[in-house]
Amino acid sequence: MEVIKRVGEMQEVSLNLKRLEKSIGLVPTMGCLHRGHLSLIEAARRENDIVIMSNFVNPLQFGPKEDLATYPRDPDRDNRLAESAGVNYVFAPSSGEMYPEKYNTYVEVEGPMVEKMCGKSRPGHFSGVTTVVLKLFLITQPDRAYFGQKDAQQAIIVRKMVTDLNVPIKIVTCPIVRDADGLALSSRNIYLSPKERKQALALPKALSAGKDMILKGETDPQSVRQLIIEVLESSPGIRIDYVEVVNGDNLEELQTIKGKVLLAAAIYVGKTRLIDNIDLEV
Amino acid sequence: MEVIKRVGEMQEVSLNLKRLEKSIGLVPTMGCLHRGHLSLIEAARRENDIVIMSNFVNPLQFGPKEDLATYPRDPDRDNRLAESAGVNYVFAPSSGEMYPEKYNTYVEVEGPMVEKMCGKSRPGHFSGVTTVVLKLFLITQPDRAYFGQKDAQQAIIVRKMVTDLNVPIKIVTCPIVRDADGLALSSRNIYLSPKERKQALALPKALSAGKDMILKGETDPQSVRQLIIEVLESSPGIRIDYVEVVNGDNLEELQTIKGKVLLAAAIYVGKTRLIDNIDLEV
Repeated sequence: MEVIKRVGEMQEVSLNLKRLEKSIGLVPTMGCLHRGHLSLIEAARRENDIVIMSNFVNPLQFGPKEDLATYPRDPDRDNRLAESAGVNYVFAPSSGEMYPEKYNTYVEVEGPMVEKMCGKSRPGHFSGVTTVVLKLFLITQPDRAYFGQKDAQQAIIVRKMVTDLNVPIKIVTCPIVRDADGLALSSRNIYLSPKERKQALALPKALSAGKDMILKGETDPQSVRQLIIEVLESSPGIRIDYVEVVNGDNLEELQTIKGKVLLAAAIYVGKTRLIDNIDLEV
Repeated sequence: MEVIKRVGEMQEVSLNLKRLEKSIGLVPTMGCLHRGHLSLIEAARRENDIVIMSNFVNPLQFGPKEDLATYPRDPDRDNRLAESAGVNYVFAPSSGEMYPEKYNTYVEVEGPMVEKMCGKSRPGHFSGVTTVVLKLFLITQPDRAYFGQKDAQQAIIVRKMVTDLNVPIKIVTCPIVRDADGLALSSRNIYLSPKERKQALALPKALSAGKDMILKGETDPQSVRQLIIEVLESSPGIRIDYVEVVNGDNLEELQTIKGKVLLAAAIYVGKTRLIDNIDLEV
């Protein structure tokens, strides 16, 4: 496995691999790898000749009051895990390498898709995501790129950007990986105290309750949303950021529960913001 | 020569050409070809195996009060000229093909570079340009793309977008082509009455006077700008939109005339807006 820090070098390697007709799978990460990331790498290995994992904590997608400075970083551990998972290249640029002085170009998906849910609590976040993802695509030239369903809104917005801009890359979304207790894996889980960790379980529990309600025949999205809110509100130590029951392809409002449905929520446990979701086909 | 109207088909052809290791030169146009465009095609032919010319009047770069509806179109003539100039593929999509319903992704260079000069009189124009150009790049997969120096600000902004987003494409700028009387070729020249056409000659004349002033040793950008304004103001039938004497690489203000200098101006002759410029190395 090779670790590359320079944009120019990574792009040259990738363009050469394309010339050799190697298929490339990209797994974009912000490091601090967990089994969620490893499942993306595994999927990328199955479907491509070469796997590139990017490891870049993208400042552009953090708000001024967010956790950019404290976001967990452990590049040596990441590289060891990536290597044993079969990654061929880790692309780990500095911020200055990705955004040199006078950097001034942004890629934005507009509209409700980016304004609701995480876009509401994190203004500018998705513009940072689409900008860095397009840069990573152009630098690493993948045939396929792998995103976790955990960040469902992100995956939907990246897919929209790729469709709108005619980027010839297939976006693959992989299922959420959970700990034994049901909590979705996230690099931010390490912020949680043991007590908060237990309180956080209300999030998967509430979403599961919503899913069960649908499986039992409920067709009104507002009733499902209300149930999720009630479960969360009756749980100690947490604060709701949002709860949504929406179309799982485009996040649009649903009149009735039908087709691809996404139950998504974000909560605060102490100072830590956690997101989770369940998607199902009805 | 083949004329392709579908995004998917054009992209498939281009990706196949890349697999065959053919180099591709893209000449983006809005049709209504003149010798300026033909000089771009000629440069593209010299440097690439395959030349793709796009012919798309991009609605996104026209303001609500601009000439989108009346912009001259003659695709049959364009195709004949392109074929005899040696173009291999004309990509001529419809608006709906480029911007389907619910299209919502935009690429923007921010900062003074897009806010001054044409960006001031045409708000949103350059966002439309960078968005369509990136789409065309991703659809046609060129190694090199050819732009006319006539639209100097556009070429600089496209170059900035390509640098910032790490697009692996070389931007080539080709010199302005002028008619015998000195007027820079433009598809919009056909809007001019014979009388207006004569009045329009004040534009190249004023810029030439500015250049001569520099060649004679003037080093103060404001004096050069003032001279250009005076020549234009003393000419009948025209109205100044802007006159700038700036850094020819990034359009920044100059303290003194040195290095790459751009003398640029936009005027109205009747209802027709014309731009022109002279760049020189001092």
